Amino acid sequence: MTTASRVTTKGDLTRQAILEDALQLASIVGFHGLTIGVLAKRLNLSKSGLFAHFGSKEALQQAIIETGSEHFIGLVVRPAMELGSAVETLHRLFDGWLEWSTERMAGGCLFVTATVEFDDRPGPVRDQIVEIERTWLGLIADSARRAMALHEFRADLDPAQFAYDFNAILLGFNQVRRLLNDPDSETRARRAFRRLLADAHRDR
Amino acid sequence: MTTASRVTTKGDLTRQAILEDALQLASIVGFHGLTIGVLAKRLNLSKSGLFAHFGSKEALQQAIIETGSEHFIGLVVRPAMELGSAVETLHRLFDGWLEWSTERMAGGCLFVTATVEFDDRPGPVRDQIVEIERTWLGLIADSARRAMALHEFRADLDPAQFAYDFNAILLGFNQVRRLLNDPDSETRARRAFRRLLADAHRDR
Repeated sequence: MTTASRVTTKGDLTRQAILEDALQLASIVGFHGLTIGVLAKRLNLSKSGLFAHFGSKEALQQAIIETGSEHFIGLVVRPAMELGSAVETLHRLFDGWLEWSTERMAGGCLFVTATVEFDDRPGPVRDQIVEIERTWLGLIADSARRAMALHEFRADLDPAQFAYDFNAILLGFNQVRRLLNDPDSETRARRAFRRLLADAHRDR
Repeated sequence: MTTASRVTTKGDLTRQAILEDALQLASIVGFHGLTIGVLAKRLNLSKSGLFAHFGSKEALQQAIIETGSEHFIGLVVRPAMELGSAVETLHRLFDGWLEWSTERMAGGCLFVTATVEFDDRPGPVRDQIVEIERTWLGLIADSARRAMALHEFRADLDPAQFAYDFNAILLGFNQVRRLLNDPDSETRARRAFRRLLADAHRDR
């Protein structure tokens, strides 16, 4: 079911508009800063009206993460998966993530924020983030495995280690870019990625 | 001035006890989850009594980060700086950070939490975190520069890139360890670090 086919009633449209705004706001102020009150004020809705769309703060948090996940799949994952070469897929995933965290998210990657806020809070929101992170790391490892099968990467590469290293570069980028406003952060991330790829190509 | 020489009055002792507890709590629930009310309850103090020690929530946040920074220097930085070899210093900084984020902090590295919560909030707390991150990255880059001068690292290494990569490995570790409880996370972090060192040693 696509997003378009789900949005059919006025209530659905309002719900979608709330989520799009909440998503950006959560990336800036975090999930704890995102109160129903703040959100209602921004959207010129009553608190009870807004609350009726979700039923609980936890349900709103889950819906925000679900919306973020749909955007992420559309922007980063799907275009990368359509490419024939596994190495091209990895390049596209990397570029897509940089675009996602800088251009699409007002306050940096939503999932980085969610991870830090929920890693010590067992519950459905944490489970949802764990699932997203596992899927993300699995996707990178699978692409590396495909590159190995195509002899684009060396046969003794550890795909899970490759995924770990790939992900770490992006987290480093998110921090240096958001906190230090370092103009070299993208160049540094790309250099680290090139080094990772060179190591994956290298024959031992 | 050492911590010991500053703690001289009963008020100082109480303040220090509040900060030690608040530091651990902030690493778990974040700075937004850390309300004066929650903290007072844990410590069996009145809210007004606790508030009197700091004057504002922002001053409390700054004092928590300052306390965390003192612990970090004592545990991670100082022992590493006392070593003669620059490469040994880097190994000790790496090991120290892993110990800091897993053994000393109940909820993972305090500065990772603080970064995500304050990166979009201009003000003195953000400035304090920026200063800590800059100092940390500068320390790693300086150690890499020292290793170059001692011919332990290759002459054309980019020390700032080395610091960026070093830091990214630790952020990757913090996420995978805290969120996914991956038992391999430390092994993966150490492997990534060995690869970084091998690249820094390698002649081009």
